[in-house]
Amino acid sequence: MEANKRPLILISNDDGYSAKGINFLAETARQFGDVIVVAPDGPRSGASLAVTFHQPVTWKLIKEEPGLTVYSCSGTPGDSVKLGMARLCPRRPDLVLAGINHGDNSAVNVHYSGTMGVVIEGCLKEIPSIGFSHFSHGWETDFTPMRPYIIKVMEYVLKNGLPKGVCLNVNAPDITEYKGMRIATMGKGIWGKEWDERISPRGWTYCWLVGQFSSSDQPDDPSDWNLMRQGYVTITPTKVDVTAYEMFERLKELEVTD
Amino acid sequence: MEANKRPLILISNDDGYSAKGINFLAETARQFGDVIVVAPDGPRSGASLAVTFHQPVTWKLIKEEPGLTVYSCSGTPGDSVKLGMARLCPRRPDLVLAGINHGDNSAVNVHYSGTMGVVIEGCLKEIPSIGFSHFSHGWETDFTPMRPYIIKVMEYVLKNGLPKGVCLNVNAPDITEYKGMRIATMGKGIWGKEWDERISPRGWTYCWLVGQFSSSDQPDDPSDWNLMRQGYVTITPTKVDVTAYEMFERLKELEVTD
Repeated sequence: MEANKRPLILISNDDGYSAKGINFLAETARQFGDVIVVAPDGPRSGASLAVTFHQPVTWKLIKEEPGLTVYSCSGTPGDSVKLGMARLCPRRPDLVLAGINHGDNSAVNVHYSGTMGVVIEGCLKEIPSIGFSHFSHGWETDFTPMRPYIIKVMEYVLKNGLPKGVCLNVNAPDITEYKGMRIATMGKGIWGKEWDERISPRGWTYCWLVGQFSSSDQPDDPSDWNLMRQGYVTITPTKVDVTAYEMFERLKELEVTD
Repeated sequence: MEANKRPLILISNDDGYSAKGINFLAETARQFGDVIVVAPDGPRSGASLAVTFHQPVTWKLIKEEPGLTVYSCSGTPGDSVKLGMARLCPRRPDLVLAGINHGDNSAVNVHYSGTMGVVIEGCLKEIPSIGFSHFSHGWETDFTPMRPYIIKVMEYVLKNGLPKGVCLNVNAPDITEYKGMRIATMGKGIWGKEWDERISPRGWTYCWLVGQFSSSDQPDDPSDWNLMRQGYVTITPTKVDVTAYEMFERLKELEVTD
């Protein structure tokens, strides 16, 4: 970043610009730099890194005060980052933040997460990117106990950066006193019982997506899922290169070459 | 799979159940087993692994003939797999296929891809899963040259399975004679120039998501992006564990423990 400028911090989420979590994160980030929020105009939970191809995307200035500008975006979390970077930020952001998400994004949920969609998009654009999520889905969750951990991670990343292709997925359990913070692996497991069936007043069947997650981590795996249950805030270093390099030898027999 | 039963093959996509690509894939797969298509009721390109939380999901039986049943789904590609597995398949599928996508999903596009959303969802459910994509976006693309490669990969996976947590991302260039098939890494690079601005008849500004991809692969990297350009069908083995294990030592200083 330019030496004479405060860091520029771009923040988005998947709960919408008015959610308590993103406003808490924006306030926390303001002490470190100029903050631009570009976030969906309503809830987009489960948006993953979806982007909008089949309709145009629009945006709206919500608020502008010294060090904090807030825009809403008609698109997805991923659209919001793309739009923020290309059109709404006065310069290239030094940091992309997502969250604080109302609901955790540990284990396999990273794949469904709009919060982590923001983070992956920031990372693909080669900007240090961090997602923050809290286990509670409550709309009035008190995020205060999370603040010192957010600050610690943010300070580290602003100072040291992150290697190209690596971003951070930070998750906090729903307790008021944390045991500490640990580096974690992505937990393993399976979602089941995913559909809640209803009958409409007109007699046809529809389903709501719900589900129960069964962890398949061993009890002593240092996974985000396990460590959160032990009372830790977890940091899962996450990479965008999803190549399964260990499969190359095994799949050799599928190759067709001259 | 049970010895006395034909394999059950669940197919979805992000172009919708009526796209040419999914119908070509379903016809190709029928020789290997019973096929159930559960696919979105319209285009969902760029859906990633989005799932639908804020409205219910419905489905509709489109076609039923010996060895082939087709449903449309109101939700995302990911919803379609979840719904297919939990409610529409008569038994647990032996294979999940996605595509053939009208447009390639090489390099970083795996993260935006609804096709690969299908595949990741299948893989998270511990079913061998393969995505097929073709470089051409044309609605009338001739997929015939791709057929022997699809068959080769499908036969291999039905015979050998895939390790838990690994799926395949198969991409074909838009040529009529392929040089062969190669195992590839996920290409690296950045999308830029992503917004095409327009002014509405009412005078406000809106944007369409477009973009130009700049590869940052070295010329001899065995990436899907490079190898497709050399005329190969590529197989990128893809994993769902996105933990950046190599970061653990480096991030140790962020830990807070008793």
